[in-house]
Amino acid sequence: MRGRVTAESEWVAVDWGTSNLRVWGIGSGGRVLFARASAQGMATLAPDAYPRILADILAPDIAPAGRPIDALICGMAGARHGWMEAPYLDAPADLGTLAGAAVTASEPGARLCARILPGVCQRGGGVEDVMRGEETQLLGLTTLVPHFSGIVCMPGTHCKWVVLSGRRVQRFATVMTGELFDVLRAHSVLRHACTGSGQGPDHAEGFNIGLVAGVDAPQRLPAMLFKVRAGALLSARTPDWCAGYLSGLLIGAEIGAQREWIGSGDLALVGSTGLVELYAQAMAKVGKQALIIDGHVASLAGLMAARQARD
Amino acid sequence: MRGRVTAESEWVAVDWGTSNLRVWGIGSGGRVLFARASAQGMATLAPDAYPRILADILAPDIAPAGRPIDALICGMAGARHGWMEAPYLDAPADLGTLAGAAVTASEPGARLCARILPGVCQRGGGVEDVMRGEETQLLGLTTLVPHFSGIVCMPGTHCKWVVLSGRRVQRFATVMTGELFDVLRAHSVLRHACTGSGQGPDHAEGFNIGLVAGVDAPQRLPAMLFKVRAGALLSARTPDWCAGYLSGLLIGAEIGAQREWIGSGDLALVGSTGLVELYAQAMAKVGKQALIIDGHVASLAGLMAARQARD
Repeated sequence: MRGRVTAESEWVAVDWGTSNLRVWGIGSGGRVLFARASAQGMATLAPDAYPRILADILAPDIAPAGRPIDALICGMAGARHGWMEAPYLDAPADLGTLAGAAVTASEPGARLCARILPGVCQRGGGVEDVMRGEETQLLGLTTLVPHFSGIVCMPGTHCKWVVLSGRRVQRFATVMTGELFDVLRAHSVLRHACTGSGQGPDHAEGFNIGLVAGVDAPQRLPAMLFKVRAGALLSARTPDWCAGYLSGLLIGAEIGAQREWIGSGDLALVGSTGLVELYAQAMAKVGKQALIIDGHVASLAGLMAARQARD
Repeated sequence: MRGRVTAESEWVAVDWGTSNLRVWGIGSGGRVLFARASAQGMATLAPDAYPRILADILAPDIAPAGRPIDALICGMAGARHGWMEAPYLDAPADLGTLAGAAVTASEPGARLCARILPGVCQRGGGVEDVMRGEETQLLGLTTLVPHFSGIVCMPGTHCKWVVLSGRRVQRFATVMTGELFDVLRAHSVLRHACTGSGQGPDHAEGFNIGLVAGVDAPQRLPAMLFKVRAGALLSARTPDWCAGYLSGLLIGAEIGAQREWIGSGDLALVGSTGLVELYAQAMAKVGKQALIIDGHVASLAGLMAARQARD
């Protein structure tokens, strides 16, 4: 079995983020032969660990010796403290140039010939920003929805808001909503109230109340956060309700503050299923419908498009 | 020596917060005979630990046996998971009634007869809030500045904004600025950039730039937070600059969002010296002068006023 699959894999697509590693073996005609994932993200790795980890995750499908196989990588593996730094492209940036700007990270003659795509940065006082991984998802979006131009909202630990014109990233901004939720729930006084599972009717009720509060007055976010604790103390709000309120408040405040971005044009949401659904609910509160694209689908499509651009 | 001081202490004033314990021995005519502090705050204590810790910190000045001595306590010792719960007064609340609502926490016949002052709460959808300790500082403010009526801003882990009319707390709100700074600097991706000491010209420059950004567009706080990281990556901002920017941005966003509170009336800042100075700089950006009162002075004055109210 192993030999047969190895023969069919023409190259390997790799999304190597801060927290996770995801690989796909690609055969002729762009057919996906296998997909694997692990929690060996960039945050936990020393630079010299990458080649071995990549070989290990591919071992069931690609033998350790043989002719060289290309691995095209996007994400935090290309950060300064990742495998090898892939310098940023400057926005406004043409996503058609990503592949040409990739760096080769593997040793000459290695079985896996690893190239890492660059991220995109934005320079200048007050607008400085960076992305790594999302640029590849954006390139994927341009192949999945060929004539899309508009705003792309990419929820996650660091949510990206992007003005995309065809293959051109015009400008973008990062909103730390996901990480605010994580650190407040784990490390702040709100942790006592937010021990809920994120399920159930209480969660949905809290989410909706927080969402409306955040959309209506995003500037009051640091004041409304404390309502989580006050609600638990004074009104015996359940842990599910509190976790839902915190999530809704943060997402609502993000949407409320980004109304100038949302505007009247097309809007796409790219990310993981559960999170994108929460954002779609929030968008509906401001009367906006969004096109929804799964984040992994977008990453794979982007890696395929970048591979084609090089060929 | 010990005997002489013991004989002079008529009672003990105690500010028992989340992180710290502070005691003052008070003699005749309200003279402060001694002051001591420790890091044995409510957050680290089981309910049955309080009597021993209070006796220990007073031991150099008050012998363990003898006639009963009153200890009047404000702060988190009266929280649900503190020494003994002192139920909240409801806002609008008359601070002249604090002493009458105190609960007795010590065992009958104990050397230290400990009473804990209540906090103040505010009920109702969207405005629920709680304070413990600040109500005593507010009472202190009314004796230190007898005719003050206006807004009191009380910076700290959970900054309180209070509308005070004479001795009446009309309404208040908690803004989590201090805790946001702490958790973001310790636990978020910004920790890599914000390792600075909080000193030096870079810190002052970062603080001022963050302050202006926050005051101008408080609703964009979750987006501007990430500029800390982008600035470190793209412009080699120093750790001091980044820590200053984060502090300025958070305080600026708080002031910018609370403009409706600031209004045109009198404004007092109550808190620790360094923090209150940062807030005074921020107030100046919106053209507001503030009366500055040290937080410990206000706590002690409030405990004295509450003691007098009981007598």
